Formats: sequence, C-alpha cells, structure tokens
Amino acid sequence: METPHTHDHHEHHLTSSDLLRDIVIGMSDGLTVPFALAAGLSGAVKDVHLIVIAGIAEIAAGSIAMGLGGYLAGKTEQDHYNSELKREYLEIKELPEVEKQEVRDFFADLGLSSEVQEKAMTEIIKNDDRWVDFMMKYELGLDKPDPQRASKSAFNIGISYIIGGLVPLLPYFFVNNGIDGLKISACLAIISLLIFGFFKSKMTGMNPWKGAIKVAFIGAIAAGCAFAIAKMIQG
Amino acid sequence: METPHTHDHHEHHLTSSDLLRDIVIGMSDGLTVPFALAAGLSGAVKDVHLIVIAGIAEIAAGSIAMGLGGYLAGKTEQDHYNSELKREYLEIKELPEVEKQEVRDFFADLGLSSEVQEKAMTEIIKNDDRWVDFMMKYELGLDKPDPQRASKSAFNIGISYIIGGLVPLLPYFFVNNGIDGLKISACLAIISLLIFGFFKSKMTGMNPWKGAIKVAFIGAIAAGCAFAIAKMIQG
Repeated sequence: METPHTHDHHEHHLTSSDLLRDIVIGMSDGLTVPFALAAGLSGAVKDVHLIVIAGIAEIAAGSIAMGLGGYLAGKTEQDHYNSELKREYLEIKELPEVEKQEVRDFFADLGLSSEVQEKAMTEIIKNDDRWVDFMMKYELGLDKPDPQRASKSAFNIGISYIIGGLVPLLPYFFVNNGIDGLKISACLAIISLLIFGFFKSKMTGMNPWKGAIKVAFIGAIAAGCAFAIAKMIQG
Repeated sequence: METPHTHDHHEHHLTSSDLLRDIVIGMSDGLTVPFALAAGLSGAVKDVHLIVIAGIAEIAAGSIAMGLGGYLAGKTEQDHYNSELKREYLEIKELPEVEKQEVRDFFADLGLSSEVQEKAMTEIIKNDDRWVDFMMKYELGLDKPDPQRASKSAFNIGISYIIGGLVPLLPYFFVNNGIDGLKISACLAIISLLIFGFFKSKMTGMNPWKGAIKVAFIGAIAAGCAFAIAKMIQG
C-alpha cells in the first residue's frame, strides 16, 4: 500500500497539528487588527506615543479575548461532550428502539441495503460503550476533546496574537510622526502577512502564492478602511 | 417515534442555525475588544475624542479582518473541497484497491465484523458518486460547503462585530472625560455581555447563567488588563 503515489496522497491530506492551528488562529488576527488600528490612528493622531499606547492596549485586549475566549470555549466543549455522553448512555437504556433506529438510519443514509443496516446495527449495539461512541460521533458529530487542550490552546493563541501584533507596531516606537511609523509598519505588516499567508496555505494544502496575496489583501483593506474612517471622524 | 420524550431530546441537541452562529462569532469579539481598548485608553488618554477615533478605527479594522477573513476562508474551504473531490474521483479509478480498503477500514473502526465490512464496502462502491461522497465525508471529514455561505457569513459576522462594538463605545460620544465614559461603557458592556452569554449558552444547550458569567468575565479581564497596561506605558 505504500507506493509513492499513495504516499503523496497522504501527505496532501495531512492536516495541521493543533499547535500550528493555534498559531494560525492567533496570528491571523494578531498581524491584522493592531496594525490596522495603528494605521488608522496614524492619519488622525499627532502624538505617536498615543498610537503606541492604543496599539498595545489593543494587543492586550485582543490576545486576552482570543486566548481566554478559546480557553472557555474549550472547557464548554468538554462540558458539552460529557453531558451528551451521559445523556446517550441514558437513552440507550430508556429508548433503545429509538436509538437502534438512529443507528439503522445512519447506515441507510450511506446507501446500504436493509440487510446490511440490520447486521451493522446488531453488531454495534452488542457493546454499550461502542454504541454510545458511535452515537456521539455520527449522530451528534462530537469528537472526544483532549482535557489538556483548552489551556494549551489558549496560551498558544494568545502568544501568537501578541507576537503578530507587536511586529507591525514596533516602528512606532522609533519615530516622531505617525505617518513615518505607518510607512515602515505597513511594509513590515505586508511582508509578514505574505509570509504568514504563504505558510498557512502550504500547511493546509492550498496554493501558497494565492494564499499569501489573500492574507496580505485582508490586512491592507482593513488598514486602509481604518485609516480613512479615522481621518473622516477626526475631520 | 414522536413521543414527548424524543421531542425534548431533539430540542436539546438542536444546533444553532448558520445565522446565529455568525452573530455569535462576530459579537463575541465585537462586544469585547473595542470595549476593552476604549477602557484601556480611558486611563491613559485625556482627550475623549481620541478614544472615540481609536474605538471606531478598531471596529473598522476588526470587522473587516473578521468579515473578509471569514469570506476568504469560506472560499478556500470551497476550493479545497472541489480539489479533494476531483482527487477522490481520480483515486477510485487509479487506486481502487486502496480506496476499497479505506472503506473497509472505516467499518472495521466502527467495530463491525469482516463479513459486514465486506458487504457494506461492496454496496458503497457500486455507485461512484456514493463512493466518493463517502470518502469525502468519512475519510477526509469534509462536508459539501454551501456556495452562497461565504459571502453571507462574512456580512453577518462583520455587521455583528460593528453592532457589538458600537454599544459600549456610544457613551464616549456624550462625555468630556474618559473615566466618565468608561463608567457608563463598562456597565453597558457587562450587561450586554451577560445577555449575550446567556442566549449564546442557551442556544448551544449549555447552562445559560454559567455562560453569561463566563462571557462577562472575559470582557472584564480584557478591559482590566488593557487599562492597567495602557496606564503603565503612559507612565
């Protein structure tokens, strides 16, 4: 089975590890939003120090919202899984006929004959754990969550947001004028977004050049709009 | 089958519609990040006008990053689905034995006997479309994406972010002092987050009171940290 062809095949289908997924989530917003906010303020605010304060306050707010949000979402997912698990164990006891029919229905939806539906159902319900496992996965679409996942994920997403956010903010530390900061910041941000988009797309098996352009485009549009709107309000 | 008991059962498992899901995604960040940013600046910036400009620039940046990001992610998902679909059609022609084994393996993983594995596999591969459909869904875990979804979703997420972001920002329009704005803004934000968390949790079948507290807690922590950090930098 391990012909070169099938090997390629599996490499292509390779999905990102959890760590890489977290980095992508954190960096997508981290590289875009603080940069766009600072860009927006550059056109409307004289004092560069204010841009730095706003940028860092944004990074703090965004990284906590995403990291803590991710943590609590992970915990909720776990609670949800556990409560559904209990419920399914109860249901196969109290409503076995309904649950049996749900197993049959799954196989019917696959296009299998009544004979195979019946046989498959009979084998699955032989063992309660297997039965409940099956219902969790294929009736409810729930995978067992990793209990450590929530806190690791929160940390990774938060740090990625902070790193992504600081890169385009750094130039403002060294200039006296918002527009000067913006020029360097925009270059840094676009380069970072191109590189990030390239690797993100490569990781998920998409065209990396197209992905690089897409990601940089989002950043540029967000920054451009923030700039225009801030300038408009400032009057 | 439609006994009151099974009816309850289905109501509980009810997952949110796509629109509600989009609103939740947009509002989660929209209600938190602009509020926390404005709160952060309230402690460090004298001019309320600047807080308003920064808040609106952040709403523009955040809504575009989330909305446009969601749109392009949706498009990418579609491209990915279509390229994998082509590949699977190719593979059942070129490597039928490998693909047959993958069908058997799926049923083996369910805990079914070799006899049922064989029968189910034989029935599934009778029809190429059904076979490919099966591989897409159960080997690759890919559901057919709705082609209209990406643009609708982008719009819904973006608008939800804007609405969520404007609510706690509004008080700053009517005060002369950041701290006064912050007091009203914080009340509005916490109330909004409690209500939002309540309905969000209700929708996903979780404890709504716990959910309300969690969501408001994230907002409060994000705002508190942004405030502390901004004050620290401002010196």
